[in-house]
Amino acid sequence: MPDLQLIAAQDSSTHPPVKEVNVGSKREWNVRASPAVGRSRNPIRETLASITANQPSCSKTPINLGLGDPTHYPLHPPPPAAIEAVAKAVIGGGSNGYLNGVGSTEARQAVVDYHGRWDRVKYDISDIVLTHGVGQGLDLLFSVMIPPASVERSNILLPRPGFAQYTALLANLDAEIRYYDCVEEKDWEVDLEMIDTLCDENTRAILVNNPSNPCGSNYSRQALKDILEIADKHKVPIIADEIYGHMTWSSPFTPLASLSTSVPIITLSGLSKRFLVPGWRFGWLCLHDPLGVASSIKSGMQCWGNRFMGPNSLIQSALPSILATEPEWYDEVINKIELLAKIVYQGISDAPGLSTTFPSGAMYSFVKIDTAAFPSIRDDVAFATALYDEQAVFVLPGLCFGMPGYFRIVLGTPSEVMVDVIGRIQEFCDEHSVRD
Amino acid sequence: MPDLQLIAAQDSSTHPPVKEVNVGSKREWNVRASPAVGRSRNPIRETLASITANQPSCSKTPINLGLGDPTHYPLHPPPPAAIEAVAKAVIGGGSNGYLNGVGSTEARQAVVDYHGRWDRVKYDISDIVLTHGVGQGLDLLFSVMIPPASVERSNILLPRPGFAQYTALLANLDAEIRYYDCVEEKDWEVDLEMIDTLCDENTRAILVNNPSNPCGSNYSRQALKDILEIADKHKVPIIADEIYGHMTWSSPFTPLASLSTSVPIITLSGLSKRFLVPGWRFGWLCLHDPLGVASSIKSGMQCWGNRFMGPNSLIQSALPSILATEPEWYDEVINKIELLAKIVYQGISDAPGLSTTFPSGAMYSFVKIDTAAFPSIRDDVAFATALYDEQAVFVLPGLCFGMPGYFRIVLGTPSEVMVDVIGRIQEFCDEHSVRD
Repeated sequence: MPDLQLIAAQDSSTHPPVKEVNVGSKREWNVRASPAVGRSRNPIRETLASITANQPSCSKTPINLGLGDPTHYPLHPPPPAAIEAVAKAVIGGGSNGYLNGVGSTEARQAVVDYHGRWDRVKYDISDIVLTHGVGQGLDLLFSVMIPPASVERSNILLPRPGFAQYTALLANLDAEIRYYDCVEEKDWEVDLEMIDTLCDENTRAILVNNPSNPCGSNYSRQALKDILEIADKHKVPIIADEIYGHMTWSSPFTPLASLSTSVPIITLSGLSKRFLVPGWRFGWLCLHDPLGVASSIKSGMQCWGNRFMGPNSLIQSALPSILATEPEWYDEVINKIELLAKIVYQGISDAPGLSTTFPSGAMYSFVKIDTAAFPSIRDDVAFATALYDEQAVFVLPGLCFGMPGYFRIVLGTPSEVMVDVIGRIQEFCDEHSVRD
Repeated sequence: MPDLQLIAAQDSSTHPPVKEVNVGSKREWNVRASPAVGRSRNPIRETLASITANQPSCSKTPINLGLGDPTHYPLHPPPPAAIEAVAKAVIGGGSNGYLNGVGSTEARQAVVDYHGRWDRVKYDISDIVLTHGVGQGLDLLFSVMIPPASVERSNILLPRPGFAQYTALLANLDAEIRYYDCVEEKDWEVDLEMIDTLCDENTRAILVNNPSNPCGSNYSRQALKDILEIADKHKVPIIADEIYGHMTWSSPFTPLASLSTSVPIITLSGLSKRFLVPGWRFGWLCLHDPLGVASSIKSGMQCWGNRFMGPNSLIQSALPSILATEPEWYDEVINKIELLAKIVYQGISDAPGLSTTFPSGAMYSFVKIDTAAFPSIRDDVAFATALYDEQAVFVLPGLCFGMPGYFRIVLGTPSEVMVDVIGRIQEFCDEHSVRD
């Protein structure tokens, strides 16, 4: 049985101490990695990899709800137009060369058109930089926005609970990370007063993730306006991670940039989630700068975009066709996720010792564990470990998102798989919980 | 007529000064980018983009020999097996999900097999990390090997002339960059004494690029052994950029790792050059560590590999087929490059005021300008600017490679295009040079 706590704390086997070997010459080998490496770890990946390397003790078929990958079971096939367009690009033979480092003109124009149509935000092609997934987009943006400590002190605000990769990507930069709370009682909306208190003259950005991983929330227009007001007061730009944009069902999604009349918003989006092709590694940055105060960020994005010479050329070639996907296709996907949200919400509500807020966006349900109800289970990591061992269901503990006492369910399976999952979780809770 | 000097020096339009705008509230917007941005510029891309934005004054068809992109004209189509395998991956629908951040097991095994077959180096799958091109591979490796200045001073040795991207990628890291000379009189082999002198206890790596961009050299076994001896003496690992590996004709290519019995070698390679698909952005790192002294680098590579979750999944799926390309296919490509090398060598030797060493590897000829022969032309940038304006031939000035007084010709066109290029260069030299 894998010990998730040990893994989450520190896997010393992958980070050996500095090694000195005498090979019989004057100097000795003393090859060592930067200490930034140890801070750059992705706990989701590491926990998942470690868990799946071991077999559960029960005989049920393992169900992996750890990674936010909609292709794993899969939930739904990608848009047929996407497949056709990429196949055409590779067979055509005209899309194998280097492109502009920030992306081809045609692909960036397709992003402009897409966000104009869906978000009602008018971008210029020069506001767009294509990236190797949102991960590289975040890395690019952090590198542009965070100065070396030798030049200036800086800090950045991140959501808690939040996507662990934010912290991992900031590991080699000098910003102090300040976490603001997302509050379950307020449908996971942000603690505005906390943001207000955390911002100071050294704050370089507030990162807002909506719809949220792992909360499954979809912020109201008013909640977003409130965030903008605080950002405007402190004159701090916002990084809007909207990779789950428009993946909502209870109410429409509101892009942050569509509401801002002053605050510079850098929106990140891409193909991984809404288009169900995370392995293609394709994302983009869009700068919305109503007052024209962020031109240094704009030129920085363009300059840094040249470092890796843009994302894959075949996907760039196909992008106009991919982003022109018919609205009906998205509806099919959202209907499936909404059904999963209902199955999970009802099932968790019926499970002793567990509770969850009805998910309204993204593809996650973040479930609270009433620790008093499980006297034999120490914490969320022990819960996830035992659930995997006894029921062969893998979920990520809240610790991976900076929020112990919870676990995350990925809404990305066929519905019959989720019904099975819920049955197993209920059985687990029936066995371990102490009812009143 | 574009002013290349201005572009090479500083394009102030893309880096405006800090901007302060009063929007009528208490605080003012003071959004600013990290100073690392300004240091992270790629002069090749910027010079090329600027040049091609303007029309030459002559009426000849422009010929762009600036970017090292073999698909531009193209030189030769990519391996048919590569096209088929990627098309199969996209149509099959089973290769759209997230993979291990360091690359799938199958794709990494294909890299192990490829280097075992071609390089006679035996890697383990755990020695391999797949990257989004060699650019991201270098970025990953530099980030792993270079500590923050607050922890420790460090330096790294780079070749001069050399690929400008090395310097750009090091911009946000704290290493002092020390350049060692490659000496034209010695077929562009390295100045060993200079490496010996530049190495000290803070040297984290020596970067060796062979075959070389821009020199077109292919180092002898003895030259490589000499480098290894110096590295072993100082106990410094070597980063071996071998993206042009096996693209040689006068003599076989010797992989540095195949000769090392002590020095840790991290070899970078990929699909961009030898497989003629640079837009696919696909590369890899291989760690050869005969004494097992670089385990911290190995675990650092694996950890950092998770940051962007690996290169495109479709290409990963196709990689085993791509790397199994028949030797005959490579021969066809090399024969074409060798023919270009001969055309250029003969043509440049016949042009007054120019000279070049016969290129024996990669896809470049680095041409020396006898400035005394061109009294009206100030330097290499002025030479390239005038050549573009008067003959519509674009070549990169040596300044872009840290070596003024030269220019680089890319050996990546059909031979009839190169014959045309040489005619135009000879005409240009006849007009501007002062013969003895």
